[in-house]
Amino acid sequence: MCSRAAFPPGIRPQGEVLLKAAVISADWAPRPDYALSEEERRTHMARVGSAVWKNPRVQVQELEDPRPGAHDVIVRVAAAGLCGSDLHFFETDADGYMHYPGMARFPSVPGHEVAGEVVETGAEVRSLRPGDLVCLDDMVCCGACEPCRRGFPNQCENLDDVGFTMNGGCAELLRVPARNCWNINALLGRYHGDRNRALEAGAGIEPFTVAYNALFECAPRLKPGAFATVFGAGAIGLAAVQLLRASGAARIIVFEHHAHRRELARQFGAHDVFPANGPEPGGKRPPREIVMELTGGAGADVQVEAAGAFNHTVTEMEACAANGCQIIIIGRDRLRVPLFLENLQVKKANVIGAMGNTGYGTYPNVIRMIAAGLLDPTPMVTDRFSLDEFEQALAKAKSRQGGKVLLRMNGAR
Amino acid sequence: MCSRAAFPPGIRPQGEVLLKAAVISADWAPRPDYALSEEERRTHMARVGSAVWKNPRVQVQELEDPRPGAHDVIVRVAAAGLCGSDLHFFETDADGYMHYPGMARFPSVPGHEVAGEVVETGAEVRSLRPGDLVCLDDMVCCGACEPCRRGFPNQCENLDDVGFTMNGGCAELLRVPARNCWNINALLGRYHGDRNRALEAGAGIEPFTVAYNALFECAPRLKPGAFATVFGAGAIGLAAVQLLRASGAARIIVFEHHAHRRELARQFGAHDVFPANGPEPGGKRPPREIVMELTGGAGADVQVEAAGAFNHTVTEMEACAANGCQIIIIGRDRLRVPLFLENLQVKKANVIGAMGNTGYGTYPNVIRMIAAGLLDPTPMVTDRFSLDEFEQALAKAKSRQGGKVLLRMNGAR
Amino acid sequence: MCSRAAFPPGIRPQGEVLLKAAVISADWAPRPDYALSEEERRTHMARVGSAVWKNPRVQVQELEDPRPGAHDVIVRVAAAGLCGSDLHFFETDADGYMHYPGMARFPSVPGHEVAGEVVETGAEVRSLRPGDLVCLDDMVCCGACEPCRRGFPNQCENLDDVGFTMNGGCAELLRVPARNCWNINALLGRYHGDRNRALEAGAGIEPFTVAYNALFECAPRLKPGAFATVFGAGAIGLAAVQLLRASGAARIIVFEHHAHRRELARQFGAHDVFPANGPEPGGKRPPREIVMELTGGAGADVQVEAAGAFNHTVTEMEACAANGCQIIIIGRDRLRVPLFLENLQVKKANVIGAMGNTGYGTYPNVIRMIAAGLLDPTPMVTDRFSLDEFEQALAKAKSRQGGKVLLRMNGAR
Amino acid sequence: MCSRAAFPPGIRPQGEVLLKAAVISADWAPRPDYALSEEERRTHMARVGSAVWKNPRVQVQELEDPRPGAHDVIVRVAAAGLCGSDLHFFETDADGYMHYPGMARFPSVPGHEVAGEVVETGAEVRSLRPGDLVCLDDMVCCGACEPCRRGFPNQCENLDDVGFTMNGGCAELLRVPARNCWNINALLGRYHGDRNRALEAGAGIEPFTVAYNALFECAPRLKPGAFATVFGAGAIGLAAVQLLRASGAARIIVFEHHAHRRELARQFGAHDVFPANGPEPGGKRPPREIVMELTGGAGADVQVEAAGAFNHTVTEMEACAANGCQIIIIGRDRLRVPLFLENLQVKKANVIGAMGNTGYGTYPNVIRMIAAGLLDPTPMVTDRFSLDEFEQALAKAKSRQGGKVLLRMNGAR
Repeated sequence: MCSRAAFPPGIRPQGEVLLKAAVISADWAPRPDYALSEEERRTHMARVGSAVWKNPRVQVQELEDPRPGAHDVIVRVAAAGLCGSDLHFFETDADGYMHYPGMARFPSVPGHEVAGEVVETGAEVRSLRPGDLVCLDDMVCCGACEPCRRGFPNQCENLDDVGFTMNGGCAELLRVPARNCWNINALLGRYHGDRNRALEAGAGIEPFTVAYNALFECAPRLKPGAFATVFGAGAIGLAAVQLLRASGAARIIVFEHHAHRRELARQFGAHDVFPANGPEPGGKRPPREIVMELTGGAGADVQVEAAGAFNHTVTEMEACAANGCQIIIIGRDRLRVPLFLENLQVKKANVIGAMGNTGYGTYPNVIRMIAAGLLDPTPMVTDRFSLDEFEQALAKAKSRQGGKVLLRMNGAR
Repeated sequence: MCSRAAFPPGIRPQGEVLLKAAVISADWAPRPDYALSEEERRTHMARVGSAVWKNPRVQVQELEDPRPGAHDVIVRVAAAGLCGSDLHFFETDADGYMHYPGMARFPSVPGHEVAGEVVETGAEVRSLRPGDLVCLDDMVCCGACEPCRRGFPNQCENLDDVGFTMNGGCAELLRVPARNCWNINALLGRYHGDRNRALEAGAGIEPFTVAYNALFECAPRLKPGAFATVFGAGAIGLAAVQLLRASGAARIIVFEHHAHRRELARQFGAHDVFPANGPEPGGKRPPREIVMELTGGAGADVQVEAAGAFNHTVTEMEACAANGCQIIIIGRDRLRVPLFLENLQVKKANVIGAMGNTGYGTYPNVIRMIAAGLLDPTPMVTDRFSLDEFEQALAKAKSRQGGKVLLRMNGAR
Repeated sequence: MCSRAAFPPGIRPQGEVLLKAAVISADWAPRPDYALSEEERRTHMARVGSAVWKNPRVQVQELEDPRPGAHDVIVRVAAAGLCGSDLHFFETDADGYMHYPGMARFPSVPGHEVAGEVVETGAEVRSLRPGDLVCLDDMVCCGACEPCRRGFPNQCENLDDVGFTMNGGCAELLRVPARNCWNINALLGRYHGDRNRALEAGAGIEPFTVAYNALFECAPRLKPGAFATVFGAGAIGLAAVQLLRASGAARIIVFEHHAHRRELARQFGAHDVFPANGPEPGGKRPPREIVMELTGGAGADVQVEAAGAFNHTVTEMEACAANGCQIIIIGRDRLRVPLFLENLQVKKANVIGAMGNTGYGTYPNVIRMIAAGLLDPTPMVTDRFSLDEFEQALAKAKSRQGGKVLLRMNGAR
Repeated sequence: MCSRAAFPPGIRPQGEVLLKAAVISADWAPRPDYALSEEERRTHMARVGSAVWKNPRVQVQELEDPRPGAHDVIVRVAAAGLCGSDLHFFETDADGYMHYPGMARFPSVPGHEVAGEVVETGAEVRSLRPGDLVCLDDMVCCGACEPCRRGFPNQCENLDDVGFTMNGGCAELLRVPARNCWNINALLGRYHGDRNRALEAGAGIEPFTVAYNALFECAPRLKPGAFATVFGAGAIGLAAVQLLRASGAARIIVFEHHAHRRELARQFGAHDVFPANGPEPGGKRPPREIVMELTGGAGADVQVEAAGAFNHTVTEMEACAANGCQIIIIGRDRLRVPLFLENLQVKKANVIGAMGNTGYGTYPNVIRMIAAGLLDPTPMVTDRFSLDEFEQALAKAKSRQGGKVLLRMNGAR
């Protein structure tokens, strides 16, 4: 545990001071059957983390104070959310390998749902000034690969991801490119000057941008008055519920396993909430029947998979599709799901793959909607911990029963 | 004045009874310089009403009870709104010719913003049953011309329009094709069983469908989080304000001449309301400056012309367009407006012509949104009259200062 | 066999003359386990033809001369194509029940790919005149159900289908609503006044409209320069190839089982043609690998399933999707196909259900493109028969090895 | 004049050699009434070139050999086109100020329609290798401003433009970011290995990308089978004609003042070509009448303004719009044009502002279409000059009567 006092508000530490951060370590132990590339051998950036890294552990320790590059800013972090991807660093298989399947190099600092205050800007930065409150867009796209140049930033071939391939926000200070920060000063007014709450809202923006990208960039047919379903009420599913409510969906039907999340879904604007498959009344009836009944036989116009349980969800969704239905897949699931495509044909329906959150105005539109009071991430937060309590925060998040677990840095609570 | 008692609720008059209706008469007096077509001579359906019909007057009188054709329904009218187009029948020029520029034949019954109860259905009608509450879609498209077959129903070449080329709803009973009625039983629940209010809401749906068609069918780029302007807060402008608010616009700025309508705009969800050109504070500043300031320099993403005063509005709109801005023209104005198209180019902006309200799911989506509590036409109603008070209703509507003027038929108030 | 001479060109038979038609008969023999509805019992219009109709047979016989209703036209048929759906009337299972799974009542006249000359028009018809050459849009939508009114004509709930639920075009004369005929006089110029060829082109339009609806109405992201695949080169697949070529696809890769159809695909504009699974060189390599290689690793931007063999096609398509790929399903297959949806997510790709051919300007746009020389259905025709040779035509079509089999009526060849 | 021999093919000059370039000079002489900003004073980068720079002249001289930054490439230029914007540097008003109204600093090298061979790559460049043939995307977007991050790269707030604010391609060597180069090796096959012609095609790509962006990114409703007009057949208008032809337009009607360009329009695929307002037969009839007649009364579905003469074009376009028409403005004109917006409303038509050419896959799609033989820029080239003949090239281009004037560098002809 690190005992140095947190940085005082509004002050950028000068000189060779150190900063506190949660640092993940692990052992480089490529599985015998994994073919290491020359580059992996040289850089220790594994393409498939779970094939190489063993015995992950975390320690809050002191790191060197970062200096900004010409296009970077330094953010004094106020809050960082823990999400499911973060947990995969720490959950291991029987042999001790981490579950995390993406690119990974250690030691590194996690944290990609981040908000804070700009404390220093690089020489070329014009869009931000010290004192600005910002939230993080974690996707650092190269801008040079063909997907980036064709307008597919979420498909960047050289993606860096803050909190994954770059040091993230579970730290007192974060260095990121200025273009990965979005100004959230406008949230201060909406939260009546409560800087603390504005920054917690900022740390909760990322799942909303994932849902916004899915609903309004990937599924362009969505119109006000739609009947909607959301399968799964984790952070992204809940964000989808709020966004659907704020954009004119006439009925939002949610299916979710955990009782606490069902409660949140209702609070976030769902009209009807049902257990996914549980023992409660309603749980034994297939969702398709419930949806057809509640929509007066019309079916759902837009359906969101945010559960990552395709065999329990997508097969239901295709059976209660309205004409022109858009079935949007945000959850991840490595299983094949047997689809009856005639359902899509008869209904002029689509299955739409969605991933990522950057580009196309997702961040500024979500920020504007929060500032206008149309969205509010803060009720999602159920637990707050200091950086020193990182392990307790992790344990709470692993239970996957509550809402969002936040780390509050630099003394904030 | 007609003195027979109104039809009692829920009962369809049988046999040769008569029904009360407001009937417009006028004199067939083609202007000397107007070239009558053979068909006009034969049918007395003038293509340009204002070129032929003189000395309009209205009388509430008894008409024969209509029998439904195989695909028709008979609606016992509960409420009919008066709108600007209706007034043009009665306003005349110096020579006594009516202002109404569209197709017209007299005597006829006005009224196209109508709701009521189905009291009889034709032999082939399956979608409605007696007792259903309905609102009217006044556009009777032919389904056979090329625009209809290509998906442009609002551009139908053989359009009949209830209340204009066919007898309308300022009457106790209305005969229309079943497909021009939309079931609004779902509104009963939203108004807690208040049938009266549900039917008034139904009579107020038409301007919402005009605005819905313009915003979501004609302007497909609109996304939640948009900054919006609405110029003109008559019925359609007010409907646009509510729709924008319900679909996630982050800021809605309204410019309107009449103080009472400004009040309504605020009540309907506008964030900022300004006089168009009046003496009040703010009225002397050009709207373009106000919009740029309130949007933090970003400009407006979507702009609605609902004032019919293009030289005062569109030239402002083009100057405060955000990147990708959609300038939607709903108001009508016969003047040419000098546009600076470079503004559109620099901003990747569009000027979008919108007209009509039928097709593309506009009615069912608006009805769903009202049923869900996302929209509410009823606060727009400021004045109610009985059918016998048609002339007083007309006089009130002509003042164009309040909200919607309703005729309440069959004894309802 | 019927021996009366065909109607002479350009002359509408008067009075009580009879006309020749191919008439399908079958025995009404509901399967024991099929629950007949009251309406089916009354009307003998079976909802599931294959559950009720047994021992189908066809005879060319004389029928009464049809009179047009007010909105109908009478078409003197010149050519009628036989397609796969027609064959299902005649192919039976072990118990003698027809394969055709849709709505069916017998006796009836098949034929929905039809062109001819208007010889009489109903009283209200304004869009066509005797002498006009027309092709048929077989989908008679009701215009009154909610899907029709919402802009989903191909999803009409009360659809009549010429050649299926109404008498079709394998006859000397055809009565249909005028709005189901499209004027093809413009094709005369394109075929240098060869009326015969213009009418054969007209009879070949229907599969092009199916493909046009799928590519340009259902898959709105398609842009010129796309890399495309087409799986299956039957009539619809071949039409898709021509449409892709004419609309700027930069590479069109076709997979097809039958050698003759592969030859047609090449002739119709495919850049690369491969056997689907055959013994020929290339047949053993999975299509996904071929597509990735030929597109330089980019994958396909648009992919058309026109084979109705989802387990052999869609699983390949999802593996060679480019960013933003649209996988369009036109073929029919009653099997479930196991999809790996993560492929869609990683690539921002969609699976799009397509069905039908009416509405949205499909017919007029296809007709314009044929008139402009951009499309040509006529090379698809490989076999021609007279109406009296209906059984031979049927036998040829059943082989499913060639292109289109045409019946040429009224003496034309 | 500079006499050193051109660089031999395929060889990157080493060390301190010099390279030849056309260098524009001018005198810094701010107009008395122009308010210089502090930044302009410091950097001599004028925001409005025509307000500051006087007495422009050009000299072919030797410059220092550029070294690539980490993300740059060095291109050995083969060809550079001169376009209208280039001419504005040299055309002056009565006081000797240049016409060019954009940002400008001198001395600088013009040339933004460029193709050549990569001869050196920066340390971080992975997408290109020495020997690759490339064409230039001249728009160097910052990637960090809000428009860039929202998906509006053509609206970048910190845009650098090669040949305008950075040294361009009228030189033997060009240094640019790798992401501004597109690989055109695929054109070699299409031109049967003729490297010279492939590179001339590459230098002609830019106007096609401007037209592609306008037609397929800005005007998303365009469908195959459309009737089209193009007003103005300069480089961009001609590119629009080819693109419309290659993407399935059924009729393309061109209006153009110069006879030679009319000839090119016909050669490039226009179906009908008319003088804009000239003395030739047809020139006296308004385009609106011609368009209505040639489209059989339907009007045009898509219309392209590429003439920059709005008062002569847009007022015609609005009068011959088909239902759903898209009027796309690419040309530039500083005059206001009086539009009759009711035309747009009645027809559900749009006026669409288009500018720029980057992003959204424009370059790769145009390159694919050229490689597939669907487009061909090379017939546009009517005149070729060596770098030493820059002044003659300029004189020819100023006549604005022919097609494209090319500079061929490094000894190529």
